[in-house]
Amino acid sequence: MGRPDLDVFFFPQSVAIVGASREPTKVGYQILYNMKMRYRGRLYPVNPKATEILGLRCYPSVSAIPDTVDLAVIAVPAPKVPDVVDDCGKKGVKGVIVISAGFKEVGNVELERKLVEVARKHGIRVIGPNCVGVYVPKSGMNTTFLNPQRMGFPEHGHIAFISQSGAFGVAVLDWAAMRGLGLSKFVSLGNKADVDESELLDYLVEDPDTRVITMYIEGVEPGKGRQFMEALKRTTPRKPVVVLKSGRSEAGARAIASHTGSLAGADRVYDAVFKQTGVIRAMGMEELFDVAVALSLQPPAKGRRVAILTVGGGSGVMATDACCDLGLEVPRLSDATVEKLRKVLLPIASPYNPVDVSGSARDEHLTESVEILMKSGEIDAIIWIPYFMVPGISEQIVEKFVERVKKVNRELDTPIPIVGAATGGDYTWKLAAKAEKMGIPMYLSVERAAKAIWALAKYGEWLKKRGTFEQYVESFRKLIGY
Amino acid sequence: MGRPDLDVFFFPQSVAIVGASREPTKVGYQILYNMKMRYRGRLYPVNPKATEILGLRCYPSVSAIPDTVDLAVIAVPAPKVPDVVDDCGKKGVKGVIVISAGFKEVGNVELERKLVEVARKHGIRVIGPNCVGVYVPKSGMNTTFLNPQRMGFPEHGHIAFISQSGAFGVAVLDWAAMRGLGLSKFVSLGNKADVDESELLDYLVEDPDTRVITMYIEGVEPGKGRQFMEALKRTTPRKPVVVLKSGRSEAGARAIASHTGSLAGADRVYDAVFKQTGVIRAMGMEELFDVAVALSLQPPAKGRRVAILTVGGGSGVMATDACCDLGLEVPRLSDATVEKLRKVLLPIASPYNPVDVSGSARDEHLTESVEILMKSGEIDAIIWIPYFMVPGISEQIVEKFVERVKKVNRELDTPIPIVGAATGGDYTWKLAAKAEKMGIPMYLSVERAAKAIWALAKYGEWLKKRGTFEQYVESFRKLIGY
Repeated sequence: MGRPDLDVFFFPQSVAIVGASREPTKVGYQILYNMKMRYRGRLYPVNPKATEILGLRCYPSVSAIPDTVDLAVIAVPAPKVPDVVDDCGKKGVKGVIVISAGFKEVGNVELERKLVEVARKHGIRVIGPNCVGVYVPKSGMNTTFLNPQRMGFPEHGHIAFISQSGAFGVAVLDWAAMRGLGLSKFVSLGNKADVDESELLDYLVEDPDTRVITMYIEGVEPGKGRQFMEALKRTTPRKPVVVLKSGRSEAGARAIASHTGSLAGADRVYDAVFKQTGVIRAMGMEELFDVAVALSLQPPAKGRRVAILTVGGGSGVMATDACCDLGLEVPRLSDATVEKLRKVLLPIASPYNPVDVSGSARDEHLTESVEILMKSGEIDAIIWIPYFMVPGISEQIVEKFVERVKKVNRELDTPIPIVGAATGGDYTWKLAAKAEKMGIPMYLSVERAAKAIWALAKYGEWLKKRGTFEQYVESFRKLIGY
Repeated sequence: MGRPDLDVFFFPQSVAIVGASREPTKVGYQILYNMKMRYRGRLYPVNPKATEILGLRCYPSVSAIPDTVDLAVIAVPAPKVPDVVDDCGKKGVKGVIVISAGFKEVGNVELERKLVEVARKHGIRVIGPNCVGVYVPKSGMNTTFLNPQRMGFPEHGHIAFISQSGAFGVAVLDWAAMRGLGLSKFVSLGNKADVDESELLDYLVEDPDTRVITMYIEGVEPGKGRQFMEALKRTTPRKPVVVLKSGRSEAGARAIASHTGSLAGADRVYDAVFKQTGVIRAMGMEELFDVAVALSLQPPAKGRRVAILTVGGGSGVMATDACCDLGLEVPRLSDATVEKLRKVLLPIASPYNPVDVSGSARDEHLTESVEILMKSGEIDAIIWIPYFMVPGISEQIVEKFVERVKKVNRELDTPIPIVGAATGGDYTWKLAAKAEKMGIPMYLSVERAAKAIWALAKYGEWLKKRGTFEQYVESFRKLIGY
């Protein structure tokens, strides 16, 4: 498979907003508003009844625009959409995002068929209909239509998110902005009349901005299951795919029927497909992104042996439980390693695993211990529980710790992944956010940190099975620079 | 059992800080500093080498203080502690909180025995040693010793938190402050030389400020298991108890041995005790407090039938899955109820369960639907997924919705518990926080909201089994006012 030619949806040079409106309560106003806020290409509102909207010259049709138009975002009543697409075709438009609802999802199968037919005739690719479209921080493409006073938009990052549900997708964007989670691309798929998750996988696996692909899906369209499976098989040896598939329960499948109308299918079939194709399945929204952040910032683990490096004993115990619950190991360390740790730690510290440096610890107790653990050869991943609030830990601990981790990892044949758990408030999260910016994923609880390590171990196992572990780690090291 | 006389630890009239220091890096300075910031009683630093600390007159010993002293907080080297307690006894002190470490946890069993002996001789109650002590927003008691520039303290609320781990306890306080979670009392138990979790249960079950008791424990002391079980049995028919017990795994139990030295015991024994005594067991920190917030703000559910009322279809599907994963039901609604809903909803809404009012919904679609669902007799609890960001929902939705819920619940024989899920960012959480202040617990994800409902159903089942459901609901309604 070559890379599908979907760039037009993410990096168009010029965009027409068809159905742009002067009325702030209308979708066609809000899309134009949101695009104008961020998009750096040429923007053309289309509305036969207006001459100017939001300070932009307005055109009666796409074909009337005196410029090439790469992409049209369409928000006119559903019955008018095929004609608009036809007009786009005459203009040489390469892609359309159809926001308008009122197609297959309400039984108008024929209208959707017609839309696709017209688009195919002109070689136009379609996202939607009945979707929210795309959000791409890098190009400023933003076809969402909610008031930015009521929601935030995340910055550029390494995680792509594909959502079958537009509303959920938008809620995630908003939450991601608050959490400080960066996205490379967001795509709301809607009815998937043309572009679907399989094609996006083939696109995103080649996308240099995307390290991890996340998805919310309710169901793959009938007849497209095989294609989806093949696309997953091509993707996962090269990039991790994390999927939140709903409709696990019978009642959930029924709910899907009245939501997107997708066939949820027997959940065990999806589960088997995910297992066979190395997809990491998340059971909820926070898990989806907890896992994705870890996979986007840290290399996969080469095994399941976890070291816990903590400033607080109780958190160390809970982290141990959480690891064991997930089938990870928290092994005893060898006498030699325990001795090395004992030498650098305070007498009241506990040099076993968990390594509990104690609440009296200073920065060097953390940096020395992490080096010893990483070089021990006895563990494959580390959970770091720093308790930034204790008096002996300085405000510079993050820089010191991250630098040490990078230095040691550069020396190692296989880098050791590290994630952190920081239960605490504002001061703690100021430092934790800095640590994450510097490359160590940070979580509010040890349970979530353990889940992140689990995903790194699981993906490592898959890569080994596919024979691409070394290759993946090699190129991942280049991405993160150590 | 009468109520144990532990008021002195939470509401003393006067407190001596023994080992108060002028040195800001010392524990004895920070305790005095933290106490001075909030405590509204009379405060006496004790240090033979100082005449004044932080503007307070300093005394050479507790017995030299020219006033009655209710409570002494002791932060002197361990070997000196028994003599300090003896001096306290001569002064008529009723309780001591021993912050000092260096007792049983490091093998100094004899010193700890002596401390208890001296205290008993004088009739002094002891919290600790090797603990962080207490934090009580209502009285300003705060014996924690971390710099408040590095941590926050929660406001007054209805949840009591008992922690065997001091560091974890402090991290939770800090996180609770950021999350806006109120606590009635926090107690760090340390070595539990005297006051233990069983006695605190008997105290807190009678505490008018406490609606829910939460605990982090690593292990109950040898020989005290029966007592703990009996205390739990007395408590849970009257107030919910939620416990995070670590040492679930073998590696976790090993970690406990080097942390608090407690015998973790076979986890299945604890699990059986919790089942027999109606304790709700949480598997992590966020779950512990997610569940506690629900139990502190909402009545228990009289059954497992859940209605989902959502503005976003995908979230409705995921909430359904999450409920079913937990053994809750999301039943089909009767034709009569579906018809009632259809009449008040938009044509594009889905009047089944989940009730999906759609992204075009206005406030009244939520308020009318919730009334129909609550009065249907077909469901026992509701998950509300409001999507505050959609344009048709006003900023007043929270007031309108909460008022309607209260009004309808007043009319019902058994109130219907409601929790909300609000995936989103700053605007969403401004409204969600308001909803929680007004009594509807709000969660970042549908999965966490489902867990909260699960706890309300589980506690309802326990109360029915104990025959105290009606009585509990009756008194809970008085507390929340509807």
